[in-house]
Amino acid sequence: MKIIIVGASGTIGKHIAASLEKEHEIIRVGSKSGDFQADITSAAAIRQLFEKTGPFDALVSTAGDAHFGPLKTMTEKEFSVGISSKMMGQINLVLIGQHYIKPKGSFTLISGVLSEHPVLSGANPAAANGAIEAFVRAAAIELENGVRINVVSPTVVEESPAYFSYFPGHIPATMREVVYAYHRSILGAGTGQVIKVY
Amino acid sequence: MKIIIVGASGTIGKHIAASLEKEHEIIRVGSKSGDFQADITSAAAIRQLFEKTGPFDALVSTAGDAHFGPLKTMTEKEFSVGISSKMMGQINLVLIGQHYIKPKGSFTLISGVLSEHPVLSGANPAAANGAIEAFVRAAAIELENGVRINVVSPTVVEESPAYFSYFPGHIPATMREVVYAYHRSILGAGTGQVIKVY
Repeated sequence: MKIIIVGASGTIGKHIAASLEKEHEIIRVGSKSGDFQADITSAAAIRQLFEKTGPFDALVSTAGDAHFGPLKTMTEKEFSVGISSKMMGQINLVLIGQHYIKPKGSFTLISGVLSEHPVLSGANPAAANGAIEAFVRAAAIELENGVRINVVSPTVVEESPAYFSYFPGHIPATMREVVYAYHRSILGAGTGQVIKVY
Repeated sequence: MKIIIVGASGTIGKHIAASLEKEHEIIRVGSKSGDFQADITSAAAIRQLFEKTGPFDALVSTAGDAHFGPLKTMTEKEFSVGISSKMMGQINLVLIGQHYIKPKGSFTLISGVLSEHPVLSGANPAAANGAIEAFVRAAAIELENGVRINVVSPTVVEESPAYFSYFPGHIPATMREVVYAYHRSILGAGTGQVIKVY
């Protein structure tokens, strides 16, 4: 399969790429590194990306920023980070990518535990995650030609200790668990699923 | 209690207002009608609204637009309707309103069944609903001074037959059921809840 990984240089993305590169053609996409660079907050940049990659079998996203900070002082501008990046960046990968993906291809996005189990300072990523999960369920019943879509929802991952203090009592997900969750979506047959890694 | 109802002239809003006006002070807000007018897609308009209303005990929202249309042809601009109106409009009512609400006050927003059970052409409202529900869970653990927040999630309502064809097999919610769901949030003690009317 020809698999595009958006966020391929990130903590999770590089492990997914390594796990699949022996058997598949991997196209690494990053904001500043990889085979192609793309700023996913720009729909034009996403369109240009797919024009360069051409048709593909799987689009994997491990990308998207959101704002961590107290609700009490949160501004609309801070809140917009999660909307333009993690939420609309990933949704635009699907809205635009649906016109480039091959029949029976798949999209696999990323959300996170905060949509279901919030933590302090996490309202912005929570909202972005909730939007992505509901979008995936809705898109799954409309995508044509056997194209599938799922989302992997990890809790804090073991290789990101800087975030541990935000997630008291959350057992960090191992990278092995997260990579296998992506495999379930990319290599499996399910659609419209939120694959929880927690 | 002093209760602000945003969307007070709408199908659901007018019934909530009627059900509470004998025992409470109701402030009706609409985009073009009511005691005060406000375009909730504008944070500045929301701030001006609360400057006019002053401190309040409950903020009820039944407002917010989203785009119904096929995923296959959906554009970023169409998708932005649900983000700027139903999603960020309501989230800004809370981000800004938290600085005006009285201790032990409550916010009650609206989402909808599509966050959990999608229908064709419903990807945009689904995403907006999912964002709102996750935001409400997250905001509930950060709001101070006993302030609560919940969201009512109805399926298609009996007084909106124009939408029935979008929701095959959904038993329309009665207005009585929807109004009581709002009462549970406004007059009850729960917080962080998605009150489903389906």
